[in-house]
Amino acid sequence: MSISEATKKQGGLAGVVAGESAICTCGTGNGLNYYGYAIEDLAEHCEFEEVAYLLQYAKLPNANELKEYKSKIIASRPLSVELKAMLKLIPKGVHPMNVCQSAVALLGTLEAEKDDFSDQDEKIIRLLGVLPSVICFWHNYINGGKEIDFESKEDTIAGYFLEKLHQKTPPAEFVKAMHCSLILYAEHEFNASTFTARICASTKSDIFSAVAGAIGALRGPLHGGANEAAFGLISSFDNVEDAIAGVNDKLANKELLMGFGHRVYGLGGDPRNAVIKKWSKALSNDHKLFAISEAIENVMKEKRPSLPPNADFYSASAYHFMGIPTEYFTPIFIMSRVSGWCAHIKEQRANNKLIRPSSNYIGPEPMKFIQIHQR
Amino acid sequence: MSISEATKKQGGLAGVVAGESAICTCGTGNGLNYYGYAIEDLAEHCEFEEVAYLLQYAKLPNANELKEYKSKIIASRPLSVELKAMLKLIPKGVHPMNVCQSAVALLGTLEAEKDDFSDQDEKIIRLLGVLPSVICFWHNYINGGKEIDFESKEDTIAGYFLEKLHQKTPPAEFVKAMHCSLILYAEHEFNASTFTARICASTKSDIFSAVAGAIGALRGPLHGGANEAAFGLISSFDNVEDAIAGVNDKLANKELLMGFGHRVYGLGGDPRNAVIKKWSKALSNDHKLFAISEAIENVMKEKRPSLPPNADFYSASAYHFMGIPTEYFTPIFIMSRVSGWCAHIKEQRANNKLIRPSSNYIGPEPMKFIQIHQR
Repeated sequence: MSISEATKKQGGLAGVVAGESAICTCGTGNGLNYYGYAIEDLAEHCEFEEVAYLLQYAKLPNANELKEYKSKIIASRPLSVELKAMLKLIPKGVHPMNVCQSAVALLGTLEAEKDDFSDQDEKIIRLLGVLPSVICFWHNYINGGKEIDFESKEDTIAGYFLEKLHQKTPPAEFVKAMHCSLILYAEHEFNASTFTARICASTKSDIFSAVAGAIGALRGPLHGGANEAAFGLISSFDNVEDAIAGVNDKLANKELLMGFGHRVYGLGGDPRNAVIKKWSKALSNDHKLFAISEAIENVMKEKRPSLPPNADFYSASAYHFMGIPTEYFTPIFIMSRVSGWCAHIKEQRANNKLIRPSSNYIGPEPMKFIQIHQR
Repeated sequence: MSISEATKKQGGLAGVVAGESAICTCGTGNGLNYYGYAIEDLAEHCEFEEVAYLLQYAKLPNANELKEYKSKIIASRPLSVELKAMLKLIPKGVHPMNVCQSAVALLGTLEAEKDDFSDQDEKIIRLLGVLPSVICFWHNYINGGKEIDFESKEDTIAGYFLEKLHQKTPPAEFVKAMHCSLILYAEHEFNASTFTARICASTKSDIFSAVAGAIGALRGPLHGGANEAAFGLISSFDNVEDAIAGVNDKLANKELLMGFGHRVYGLGGDPRNAVIKKWSKALSNDHKLFAISEAIENVMKEKRPSLPPNADFYSASAYHFMGIPTEYFTPIFIMSRVSGWCAHIKEQRANNKLIRPSSNYIGPEPMKFIQIHQR
């Protein structure tokens, strides 16, 4: 089968190899590894910053390297006067993904990357540090007009985000669960947003332009927005019985259920699911939402065995148990995935070729031009 | 040859069919047509607005439809207080592409698209109307602190942009040349920025997120930024003799010359070049830069016959003869290509499948995890 036949058949570049990458195994049959390390190990033993370092420098840090890296991220937390002024212009009720895209695009003007990209690693650290501040500043400002500061005893992105969002010290268990979630979402090969970042980088654009582009792709419910949509499903039911009946109805109506299935994983399912499910259960305190989630999972297992739950399904309830409003589920994904995007931007730049596919033309034959007054 | 062998060999998805499209023939051997109409006809007979309408609605407008369309675009020109306030935060010296990305991202919060995309055509018209205002407002503000208004007797994007940029009525010849340039740049199949817009749309993200993403890709010198780079080459020479010697030197050093060659066009060259070259010549008034441009073209014709000039080469000098500062060459490309991006967003949405390719894994084998204090 030729390339064009294969893509015509499947569409969406499904299964089409668009380049080489050393960053992540995903659907290769070896589980999900970042630079060779299994996500199960990383999620159990690491802070998110260790994994961000791994993605940025292709090796795990030692204790000193991690300490220095975290100091730099902490120093990158504050928002400038200009960035705060811009965030204060954005009204309540809009999607915080657009807020994050606006902030990253504006950073591209206020703190532009050098044309030779020699400061790309500093910019990556700036993005890691500043994104939680962007989200929490805007959230607190539109809900009560409070302008938060950026001082904190929390020395990790996970702890800092939870503290600043809710303006109180988070329970240690929440911080651990957030590390786990950030680690699981950090990297996932040529997904739509990462591929967007690579295309932008392939034209030799700057890192802020590329990350803002990636945010634009992540926002959609068929990608990052899936965890919000999954929570919408789970929280639409009052109890286990309703959930079972409701999901069966939806399946009978051939509705698409978010949080299940993934293009690159087969029947073995998404390896991130088991890890985050444990945290969802641990945080649930027997909340009915966890039972509802499991009931939905069981119906799907029976009726749609080819669509096992993906990472989004139990992430949604885990975030909910931490008190995070649904609209911040996808922005958390940015805080994490920015590490993977930037790893791919670095990799693309190191061996660049413009990414520019072709299309099959299915439009009209050449048309005779007719002057406007004769139309 | 299998897909992965083909892409490994070429890279960058070169020649890989990534989907179907009815919008544009490009490299199919039939010249460059938008919905079947040859760009030569469109560039000679149309205002840019007719072409933008064609791309938005897949048909050329009649006189009444065009009149109504232009009225709506004119009504979309003003910047809101918030958008002006954001633009005033951006310092002089930064690339205006990042300014445009910031403005479009912020519009995604201030004037969010509806979740069901039922207002997508209104948003396209808003983008067409507002982008020239964004560029001209920022340009005039950072150069002298003037806050321009958005009133104008110019009823087209071409005339309005030239008037507002320079704060004076443009010569009719400049307006005509600008129409031609906007028409030539409006659409070009699955180029990097358009494909970026399609990926964003394929996750079901909103139109502002997708257009901001596309701007991020267009910025790079291997894509939209090529016209700025081409002008850098042309203007680096003082006379024809220096240009001939200089280009020969660069070729001997195997330097990449921007403005020549294009992935999808073969030896026949970029059909847009002949059209814009005429305008460059007409506007030049025998300025030495036109002679230098032709001298460079002739050296390339002799020494690199496989790399004929593309649309960027003579666009650069045409813009210069209109008095447009170099850093606005690529933002003009946005004002034009936004029509193509939005046509592709509409087409992607009408028959959507998530765009998500795969990669060839070339990274480390599974690694044993080592605790941080043992590293």
